[in-house]
Amino acid sequence: MTNPTVANYYLNTVQQSLIGADFEPEIIEIPDGEEYKSLKWAGKIFDKLIKYKMDRLSPIVALGGGVVGDIAGFVAATYLRGVPYVQVPTTLLAQVDSSVGGKTAVNHRRGKNLIGAFYQPKFVLIDVSTLRSLNMREIRSGLAEVVKYGVIKSEKLFAYLEENMEKIIALEDAPLREIIKKSCEIKAGIVEKDEREGGCRALLNFGHTLGHAVEAVTQYREFKHGEAVALGMLFAANMSSEFGYADESVKNRIESLLKKMALPTKLPSREMRVYAQAMGVDKKLLGDTLNFVFAETIGRASIKKIPLSRCEDYLVKYASAAS
Amino acid sequence: MTNPTVANYYLNTVQQSLIGADFEPEIIEIPDGEEYKSLKWAGKIFDKLIKYKMDRLSPIVALGGGVVGDIAGFVAATYLRGVPYVQVPTTLLAQVDSSVGGKTAVNHRRGKNLIGAFYQPKFVLIDVSTLRSLNMREIRSGLAEVVKYGVIKSEKLFAYLEENMEKIIALEDAPLREIIKKSCEIKAGIVEKDEREGGCRALLNFGHTLGHAVEAVTQYREFKHGEAVALGMLFAANMSSEFGYADESVKNRIESLLKKMALPTKLPSREMRVYAQAMGVDKKLLGDTLNFVFAETIGRASIKKIPLSRCEDYLVKYASAAS
Repeated sequence: MTNPTVANYYLNTVQQSLIGADFEPEIIEIPDGEEYKSLKWAGKIFDKLIKYKMDRLSPIVALGGGVVGDIAGFVAATYLRGVPYVQVPTTLLAQVDSSVGGKTAVNHRRGKNLIGAFYQPKFVLIDVSTLRSLNMREIRSGLAEVVKYGVIKSEKLFAYLEENMEKIIALEDAPLREIIKKSCEIKAGIVEKDEREGGCRALLNFGHTLGHAVEAVTQYREFKHGEAVALGMLFAANMSSEFGYADESVKNRIESLLKKMALPTKLPSREMRVYAQAMGVDKKLLGDTLNFVFAETIGRASIKKIPLSRCEDYLVKYASAAS
Repeated sequence: MTNPTVANYYLNTVQQSLIGADFEPEIIEIPDGEEYKSLKWAGKIFDKLIKYKMDRLSPIVALGGGVVGDIAGFVAATYLRGVPYVQVPTTLLAQVDSSVGGKTAVNHRRGKNLIGAFYQPKFVLIDVSTLRSLNMREIRSGLAEVVKYGVIKSEKLFAYLEENMEKIIALEDAPLREIIKKSCEIKAGIVEKDEREGGCRALLNFGHTLGHAVEAVTQYREFKHGEAVALGMLFAANMSSEFGYADESVKNRIESLLKKMALPTKLPSREMRVYAQAMGVDKKLLGDTLNFVFAETIGRASIKKIPLSRCEDYLVKYASAAS
């Protein structure tokens, strides 16, 4: 399963390799874009799997970014109550984040990833050379998640990003491999402890509460996922200072790294209650209480329950200070 | 979650009981009928869950028969990547079969239960008094699955059915409790050994290969599930004799019990290739090989791989002999 953009670059290679290994691959393409990660498109994919008579042992290969990986994973989790699948992520974002950990999902018009399952791929194949076909905006979007791993778990990774940003942006192999490997290790380590997000897995949501809301409010069109997460991380870092969980140097260091990476740091102007409402349908909400991830230092984060209203109030203050 | 027919009888009781236990239940109804167990209706249920702001800890209660239980279970498995659910089956079929074992699913127009997940309910609450609101056709449909448990695992249960059929049909409490309890024990025992149907769980498919095909071909309108399974069991029993796995007494005893229960024993006339094609999209198919469940004695069955073509050939012979 892939999309036309990725197919253009890599489908032939992957297809030949599978045929060489005695598979008889069928191609399923979905259009490129977050708006196609829907229950409706999952339905179209089920139609094709049945048409091709795919059975319980037919593996699904997800060749592409997070959209392809997430919907392919969801379909693999639910077709015939589960068939094997393999992730071949071709974007930095998918390589460091969505391909690892077994979260599969489709979006609902009211929020991202609201329908899905926990379902692990048989393996994840990462080839950094695929990153050369991405535009810089996509690279930056992926790097936002790498910044997140630094903030929540590894001051060393964060410092490595600060020191090697030029080489990374120039797509040099060695530093790319270094940050991808480290990111996957951190994510896999957290997921192994807590697959179903009862506890520490929620750390991975740092920056995502507001990030998801920004994406939903702008209908997944204005921002790449990582760009929205950058906005969310900066908000979360500021809120961490405001609430007294971190000193100011934490938010300053995050802001300065995000700016160095040319990631957005300013919320698009909207009525604040629109964001607040969008945060209210986020999966991390339990009743009227949010599980919010605060940065304590660079390298350590913590999850705290706060009333949704407190988060909203600070959002209004934060947005008016920035404008 | 329930349907209007069941709601009419039991919704108020269940609702009051939940309110008494400090829940604030929201009601979601889906129309009564197998054709509503679809991805489209699952989508409508997701809409409502989001509208009601249901979160990860909000339990879903499935009050009704197999359709309500299967789609509620599928929605519970995939809403926010999984929320708790409880089965309160109100039909005999659901009490002895679909509510136990964690199989959740929706249908695809090309076949039954093609989209789903393995997801266990927190508990199953069975009240035999709900059976008194069923018509006899539904009772008989449920009894077909009880016959199946007898054939695959318990000569004692099969003999109990032969001896107590009048009391069961009269809906006497004690024999109903006996057969439901025994059926749940057999099913739970098999599912505990093999939740994901890698091995012995497939025994539960006795009679279901042709049964599902009959339902698909008649568009889920002509037969109750158990009626189709009765046709499938008789076919499987005949094929077991034909292939030399069982002596004739097995099929004779099954046929005579099914007739005593006024379950259908004659395949509706259709082009045989239509059934064969429908068997070809069944989940139990691996490539061109079927995992077919044969009866060896009353109380013992076995799973054997056979070519789909061999099953088709016998189907033609079987149907022409019967007509």
